[in-house]
Amino acid sequence: LQGWGREGDTLAVMEEMGKLGVDTSMTLGDRDFALCAHRASRLAAGERLSSITTDLASRFGIDDVTLIPASDDPIETHVQVDDGSWLDFQTYFVDRGHADAVSAIAFHGTVEADPAPGVIEAIDAADIVVIAPSNPPLSIWPILAIDPIAALIGAHPRVAAVSPLFAGKPVKGPADAVMAGIGLAEGTEGILEAYDGLIDVLFIDSGDRADVTRAATSETDLVAANTWLDEDNGPRFAAMLLEYMAR
Amino acid sequence: LQGWGREGDTLAVMEEMGKLGVDTSMTLGDRDFALCAHRASRLAAGERLSSITTDLASRFGIDDVTLIPASDDPIETHVQVDDGSWLDFQTYFVDRGHADAVSAIAFHGTVEADPAPGVIEAIDAADIVVIAPSNPPLSIWPILAIDPIAALIGAHPRVAAVSPLFAGKPVKGPADAVMAGIGLAEGTEGILEAYDGLIDVLFIDSGDRADVTRAATSETDLVAANTWLDEDNGPRFAAMLLEYMAR
Repeated sequence: LQGWGREGDTLAVMEEMGKLGVDTSMTLGDRDFALCAHRASRLAAGERLSSITTDLASRFGIDDVTLIPASDDPIETHVQVDDGSWLDFQTYFVDRGHADAVSAIAFHGTVEADPAPGVIEAIDAADIVVIAPSNPPLSIWPILAIDPIAALIGAHPRVAAVSPLFAGKPVKGPADAVMAGIGLAEGTEGILEAYDGLIDVLFIDSGDRADVTRAATSETDLVAANTWLDEDNGPRFAAMLLEYMAR
Repeated sequence: LQGWGREGDTLAVMEEMGKLGVDTSMTLGDRDFALCAHRASRLAAGERLSSITTDLASRFGIDDVTLIPASDDPIETHVQVDDGSWLDFQTYFVDRGHADAVSAIAFHGTVEADPAPGVIEAIDAADIVVIAPSNPPLSIWPILAIDPIAALIGAHPRVAAVSPLFAGKPVKGPADAVMAGIGLAEGTEGILEAYDGLIDVLFIDSGDRADVTRAATSETDLVAANTWLDEDNGPRFAAMLLEYMAR
């Protein structure tokens, strides 16, 4: 499972860059590369990420939802590995293939970072906030590290998260290893710790249904369901989640 | 005749960029784009153009000749058009399709620019200097605008140029129009004016052989030959030129 990219994309740029001596271990398809190069060029020209994102979403025909990045300001993830040294995220994840044991995580730039235009308003106006199934420390915490966003989500009455784990393991990536390395509990309990004080309901996979009784806390409901989000089950799961949260 | 690009290159990046709203009237193939993006990234990291060029030439298997850019410093071409305003070269040539009448040309940065490492030594050591068939004001003058290069070529005993004109017209591009616009004579005579004081022999196409007597000067030999440089005739012409210059 590669986990990124565009269906049917070609690899002419990567193949050529490989011949020119570029490290192409992080493969990007031609259409993906075009998008990244285009976005980088607009960022370099001073345009805000949120403005670029709005334009690109519209060009991709995404008109029925509003897509906003957490911030227009740069936020960097750094991890501490077994020998005590700190690596920036790209080095840890891409160059070294997330093979190092992680003992701590730090986010740089969060104090200076403001939520992007529309983020606060969107959370304020939302009937339900849903945290998608992703790596809590590496993918969701960088967003929650922006104080006004975490404060607003913590105060929101209906926040759901979807666990990225299936029998304690993510579909891909190092979520379970990173969570253990930084001292979170295993499995569903670790997800609850990662989102402590923020969420009202945690959706976990049916295969982990034993956790519903074992890990339940007074503050957070646990709901077991089929959380495998492919084209068939994704819409079904989303409808169920919305119905549950609307109670 | 497109005049640039790699044989059999694909257009995935340009097609995607077009969908993202980028002006793709200057088409670059995927392999071409990969090369340009790679070179731009190395330049941005502070590497010198001459060092990048040496590396890329070697990766393309060009081992039998030494390829050196004129300078590692930026030199910009600007043209004055009919309404008196000045346009940078990309705007004039690419965005506006070299449709404007040009009345003057200026090169910015030439005073600060040094010849790249090896350029002076290469001209010094050369038995023969050959100026390839190209647009004299727009493509060759930016090189000659670097004083030490022009001085060295002017003092060299055996300098040949190949006229880019066939019956007074270039194969493509605005050479004849630009030359007329800035006050050079038409045809072979204009090429001689453009290279005044620099060259010893001018090779012109057989179709223009009447110019050998008409435009000949005391300082410059004119030689008429088949100057159409395709895969068949290119090596034949080069061998003839070398033989002529070695007299």
